[in-house]
Amino acid sequence: MAAPNRESTQVVVIGAGYAGISAARDLDHAGIDVIVLEASDRVGGRVHTDRTDIPIDLGGMWLGAGHTRFSEMAASASVTTYPTPSHGDALLRDGGEWHRYDPHRPLPPLGPVATAMFASVAWRLDRLAERIDLRAPWSSADASRLDSITVSSWLRTAAPYGPVRRLIDANVHEVLCADPSMVSMLALLTYIKSSGGLEALISTDGGAQQDLLIGGADGPIRHVAAELGDRIRLDSPVERIDQRGDHIVISGPTATITAERVIVAMPPTLAGRIRYEPVMPPSRDALTQQMPMGAVWKIFAVYDTPFWRDAGLSGESIDLRSPITATFDASPPIGPGLLCTLVGGSRARRLDSIDESDRRRLVLDHFASVLGARALRPVDYRERSWASQIWSRGGYSGYTPPGVLSTLGRAIRTPVGRIHWAGTETAIEFQGYIEGAIRSGERAAAEVAATLGDHRTGRSASAHDPTSVGADL
Amino acid sequence: MAAPNRESTQVVVIGAGYAGISAARDLDHAGIDVIVLEASDRVGGRVHTDRTDIPIDLGGMWLGAGHTRFSEMAASASVTTYPTPSHGDALLRDGGEWHRYDPHRPLPPLGPVATAMFASVAWRLDRLAERIDLRAPWSSADASRLDSITVSSWLRTAAPYGPVRRLIDANVHEVLCADPSMVSMLALLTYIKSSGGLEALISTDGGAQQDLLIGGADGPIRHVAAELGDRIRLDSPVERIDQRGDHIVISGPTATITAERVIVAMPPTLAGRIRYEPVMPPSRDALTQQMPMGAVWKIFAVYDTPFWRDAGLSGESIDLRSPITATFDASPPIGPGLLCTLVGGSRARRLDSIDESDRRRLVLDHFASVLGARALRPVDYRERSWASQIWSRGGYSGYTPPGVLSTLGRAIRTPVGRIHWAGTETAIEFQGYIEGAIRSGERAAAEVAATLGDHRTGRSASAHDPTSVGADL
Repeated sequence: MAAPNRESTQVVVIGAGYAGISAARDLDHAGIDVIVLEASDRVGGRVHTDRTDIPIDLGGMWLGAGHTRFSEMAASASVTTYPTPSHGDALLRDGGEWHRYDPHRPLPPLGPVATAMFASVAWRLDRLAERIDLRAPWSSADASRLDSITVSSWLRTAAPYGPVRRLIDANVHEVLCADPSMVSMLALLTYIKSSGGLEALISTDGGAQQDLLIGGADGPIRHVAAELGDRIRLDSPVERIDQRGDHIVISGPTATITAERVIVAMPPTLAGRIRYEPVMPPSRDALTQQMPMGAVWKIFAVYDTPFWRDAGLSGESIDLRSPITATFDASPPIGPGLLCTLVGGSRARRLDSIDESDRRRLVLDHFASVLGARALRPVDYRERSWASQIWSRGGYSGYTPPGVLSTLGRAIRTPVGRIHWAGTETAIEFQGYIEGAIRSGERAAAEVAATLGDHRTGRSASAHDPTSVGADL
Repeated sequence: MAAPNRESTQVVVIGAGYAGISAARDLDHAGIDVIVLEASDRVGGRVHTDRTDIPIDLGGMWLGAGHTRFSEMAASASVTTYPTPSHGDALLRDGGEWHRYDPHRPLPPLGPVATAMFASVAWRLDRLAERIDLRAPWSSADASRLDSITVSSWLRTAAPYGPVRRLIDANVHEVLCADPSMVSMLALLTYIKSSGGLEALISTDGGAQQDLLIGGADGPIRHVAAELGDRIRLDSPVERIDQRGDHIVISGPTATITAERVIVAMPPTLAGRIRYEPVMPPSRDALTQQMPMGAVWKIFAVYDTPFWRDAGLSGESIDLRSPITATFDASPPIGPGLLCTLVGGSRARRLDSIDESDRRRLVLDHFASVLGARALRPVDYRERSWASQIWSRGGYSGYTPPGVLSTLGRAIRTPVGRIHWAGTETAIEFQGYIEGAIRSGERAAAEVAATLGDHRTGRSASAHDPTSVGADL
C-alpha cells in the first residue's frame, strides 16, 4: 500500500522547537527511529537567536531558577550562562516622575498604601495558586468559579487602588502576553503555580528571569539538532495526519511519512489547523478552537556599551501608563549594551498597526525617557512581532480564556489514537517557558516509547504484512 | 501560467450555507460568474433537514419576527411557514415540582421576588444593549469594561438570587450555546441588540422563534441551490487560498480555481484553518484563534401525535437544575408530535462523553418527567451534535470570549486583499441566525460586485494576458 515516494519511520515529531527536539532526542537515545518535520527554515520555534551581528534573542531567552532540564541541556551543549544584568537602580513611574528603587527588593516603590495592598494581593494570589492541582487544574477546589471570572474582574475587587491594579496589569501583560480581561483567574493561578509562585514568576535572581545564555538561547537546541542531523527536515509543514489505517500517515507539500506514532509539538491553535483523519473528537477540537496565542513584540536597541550603568541605572523600568511598559538590560557580559522591551496583549496588537518607523520612534522615545537622550542613537535596532510569525502566530504561548480550562483542559495532554501532544502549553511545571517545552517533549517521548514497547512484543503478529513498519525498516 | 486542469471564474464562494448561497445568488443575478465550493456533501451548512422519514431540522429551523430576508427567500421558494406550536401551558421547575404557566406571558412563574428581579435584570440588559453600536461594538460606550467581564461575573452581581441567575444561565446556554463563564458581557449585549432586544431573543410570538417552515428550514436554500445548479461543487473542501499573483487561486484536493475575488462564508474558526498565501495579518489571524464555536446537541423524539396537548401542555419546559434544560414542540401542523431539546455549552460537551444509549435514556427520562411516561416510547429519535460535525465543529455560531470583541472585532468583516468575509458571525443584524447569514452573504456580494465594477473599467489593460480571467471566459 505504501507509495514508492513514502518514507517510513517509527515516530514522527512535528515541530522542531525545544519540545519537539527534546522528544526526538529522547526517542533517539532509546533506539527508536524518529523524523522531525519542521515547517520553518530553522529549529527553535519560539526561541530564535538572530546572529546578524551579535547574538540577539528575538524569542524566549531566559533560563530561570528551577529550570533544571534546560540547564542540563545547556551544560551538555557546553553553552555557558550568566546572571541577567541588574547593576544599579530600577525605575518606576505611574505618570509624573520616575522613582528609583532597588530591583532586588521584593516590592516596587508605590508609596505605603500601594505597597501594602500590592503585598496583600500578591499574598492572596500565591495562596490561591497553592491550591491548584497542577496535573488537573479542572479538579482544583473552586475551579469552576475561578474559571468563570477574568483576571480583570478579580483585580477590580482585590486591587481597587489604581497604581496596584496597573502594576499587576503590567505584570500580566508581560507574563502572559494577554490582557487581564482575556485570561481566566484559574488559568492565571495555574500559571503562577506552574512557575513556582508569583515571586519566581516576576523575579530575576531566584526567578524565571535569572540567567541568560552566552551566544543565545538557541545554542542548546542547535547542539541537539546537530546530533539529530538529517532526521530533522526543515521547510516541511504538515497539513494532514491520517490514522485511519494500520499506521499513521503524516503529509504535507514536501513529505509523506508513515509511522507508528506521532508527537505534535506545536501550539494548540496551530495543531488545530492540521487536517486529521478521522477528525479530532469534539473536546480536542474545541480546545484548539479556544486556546489562542498571546501577542508579543520583542524590541531591542543596541548601544556601544550599557551606558546606563554609569548613571547607576540597571536598565529595568516599569512605566504604568505607557504602551511600552517595561524595559530591561539584556546585554552580554562583555561588549555592547542591549536594552529590551516586551510588549504584550492588546498593547502589542496596537504596535502591529503602526508602521516601522513610527514604532521605532515610539520605542526609542520611551527608552530615552528612561535612560536619557543617548538612548535615541542606538547602533542597531531589532524588532520581532511573534503574532506575525507564520509558524507561531503569537507568543509566548497559548492561554485559556474563561470557562475553557475547567471544561476542556484535560484534552491538552490526552493522546488521540496514535497522536501524542507536546509543547510548552502541555507542561505541568513551567508551562509557557523553554523549561516547560523540554519537559513536555520528554513526557511525550516517554508516552510513545511505552506504547512502542508494547507494540514490539506483538510485532510478530503483523510481520507478514509487507506494509508494516518492521518490514519497511 | 494557469495549469490545464485549472478552472477560472470571477468569484469563488467558499461554503454553501445560507451565507454563501445568498452571496452566490446575488452575484449571479448581477451577471457575475461564480462558483461555490462546499466541503460537505450537501448545501445548508448549519441548517440541515433530515428527510429520512418526516422532515426534521437537525440544525437551525426558526424564522423569527423581523427576519425579512429569510422570509422573502422562503416566499420565493414557495415554502410556507406556520407559527411555532404553543398550545397550552408551559412548565418550569427549579428543583421540586413543576409549575404550569402561560408561555405567552412575559415572565416565568418564579415567585414574586424572583419575578421582580428577573424583570429588573432583563430591563438592565436591554438598556445596556441599546447603547451598543452594532456596526462597531468596540466603539460603544464602556466597551472595554463590558468586554473585560464574563456574563457570569455580571450575573453574580446583577442577579444574586439563585433561581433568577439559573434562569438567565439557561437562556444563555440556549441562545449562545456557551456557558455564561465563556462569553463577555459586551458580546452578549451585542447579540441581544442584534436580535432586536432580549424579549425578541427568547420569545416565540414576535420573537426569534416565531415560525417554522413546512418541509424543513433548508427548503429555501435548496431552491436557490437548484437555480445555481452545477456552479455549486459539493465535496470540495478548500485548503489553500493564494493571492500572491495577479489573481487569487483557491485549491483543495478536488479543485483548483482561479478567480478575481473570494468570499469566505465559513465560521471564523474554520476559516482560520485554511492556509493563506500570503498569511493573514495578525489581527485577522488572532480573531480566528479566539472566536470559537458554541457547542450544541439538538435532540428530537417523534411521537404519533403531540399527545401533550391533550393534557393542556405546550411541550415547552424549563428545568433549571437539569442538564437537559429546555424542551419545546416542533411538530408540523398536521401529523406526528415532535418534542425537541437544545443542550448548549459545557452541558452539551458532557453529552459528548456518554454513549448513545445512555444519552437517549437521559433525554427520554427527562421528556417523561415533563410530559409523562408516554414520552418514553417515541416512534423515532434523532440526535445531532454540532461539535462533531466535521465542517461546522460547533453551533449555532462563533462567539467572542472576554477581551476579543473590543480589541479584534473590527477584523470580522474587513476584507484582506481579494478575500471578503461572510457568515452569520459577520452579520450586523441577527447575527447567529439564518437571517444574519443571508444578510452577511448579501453584504459580501455587494462588496465584491463593487470591486468588480472597478475592475471591469480597467480590464482592457490586461486583455493581452492569456491567463487573465477575461481571456479564459
